Amino acid sequence: MSGANGESVVLLSGGMDSVAALYETVQRGPVAATLSFHYGSKHNDREIPFAAWHSQKLGVPHLTIPLDFIGRHFASDLLAGGGEVPKGHYEEESMKKTVVPFRNGIMLAVAAGFAESKGASALVIAAHAGDHAIYPDCREDFMRAMGDAMRLGTYAGIELVRPFIHLTKTQIAARGAELGVDFSRTWSCYVGGETHCGECGTCVERREAFQLAGLNDPTEYASTGPLPARPVATAN
Amino acid sequence: MSGANGESVVLLSGGMDSVAALYETVQRGPVAATLSFHYGSKHNDREIPFAAWHSQKLGVPHLTIPLDFIGRHFASDLLAGGGEVPKGHYEEESMKKTVVPFRNGIMLAVAAGFAESKGASALVIAAHAGDHAIYPDCREDFMRAMGDAMRLGTYAGIELVRPFIHLTKTQIAARGAELGVDFSRTWSCYVGGETHCGECGTCVERREAFQLAGLNDPTEYASTGPLPARPVATAN
Repeated sequence: MSGANGESVVLLSGGMDSVAALYETVQRGPVAATLSFHYGSKHNDREIPFAAWHSQKLGVPHLTIPLDFIGRHFASDLLAGGGEVPKGHYEEESMKKTVVPFRNGIMLAVAAGFAESKGASALVIAAHAGDHAIYPDCREDFMRAMGDAMRLGTYAGIELVRPFIHLTKTQIAARGAELGVDFSRTWSCYVGGETHCGECGTCVERREAFQLAGLNDPTEYASTGPLPARPVATAN
Repeated sequence: MSGANGESVVLLSGGMDSVAALYETVQRGPVAATLSFHYGSKHNDREIPFAAWHSQKLGVPHLTIPLDFIGRHFASDLLAGGGEVPKGHYEEESMKKTVVPFRNGIMLAVAAGFAESKGASALVIAAHAGDHAIYPDCREDFMRAMGDAMRLGTYAGIELVRPFIHLTKTQIAARGAELGVDFSRTWSCYVGGETHCGECGTCVERREAFQLAGLNDPTEYASTGPLPARPVATAN
């Protein structure tokens, strides 16, 4: 890590990947703060309390930044005002509707400014090898350009750190278990109901990750029917 | 311009550069919307009404996005909670205090998401040849990386357009006058009082621009003492 005080800020949604990334980062060095965003999505109210819970457990200050304008002025089925969240595996046509335009760009930019104002040197995001290429702001070339922009656009030269970039979601589940993460206190489901639905794209991935990692899945699902076959087109 | 509907979104602070850039862009093609940000600075309340005024005059929808979290969680003398705005020319040590960490990164990222959600193809910013290298997020290498991130991170491949990148502020004043811009309805002063102070870094630049362009300066200044000598270190 370059410049500033050597501390990290961790982007923490409250999902299993970012919670595991927090535990990983705490093992590697000091963490200045964790940062959640409330952008008006259906599942924000479910996942952010878990982000706060893990931060408190690890003694790291946690901050939630509201991005209300996204819900008011941007169009997406992922948002509370949008249509129904599609079921089954991620696929180009159905999941395109869940895109919040340039969400990662916005969250990384705000977090970079926050990290600089805290004197931190690095910003940690739980991007991983299975991130979906249908979201342009999850792709490698975007991440590289955005990392350059953050480093060049800050005095501290904030570094974008992706500890899980070479891991699959299954490997993250395994690594999280090693680190002692209580995955029952993480949230994935995009529907945002009382329990995980078990059928939306993120629930399917969550169930698969625990299953393939050979871990007990502590999640309560509304539906635990057989997992759909993985489409040939889906990488990872 | 690439992809989408060929329309532009224009970043419009209400200062003389961005207002001139709006008139320039309207001449070149369709404008989907103008976008202002209220990030809690002392002069936002002065400049944004001018942004709205020019948009309405040109028949372009105008939107102000509040970025309240910057005022609450970021540290800078430019913000209402910060210290006094320094007087005189921009210089490394005094003006560093007016930096809002990664402000351009945050504004560009939010605007890129907004532009994509409006189906626009391009985002226009009034960056110019005199932008101050003390702000890392005004530098050319940052702008290039951020432009890449916006293009790569959106379905539409949003293009970052800088119509004035090769002009000085003096040349922008001259171009704006040609385009019929009423500069009395633009705001520069960082102090954000009833009238322009005439002494802060942005006021000094504004006064110089009109003077060097040989234009009548329609601005009411609280102080119109002699302009300070330009420091040797300042480019442009």
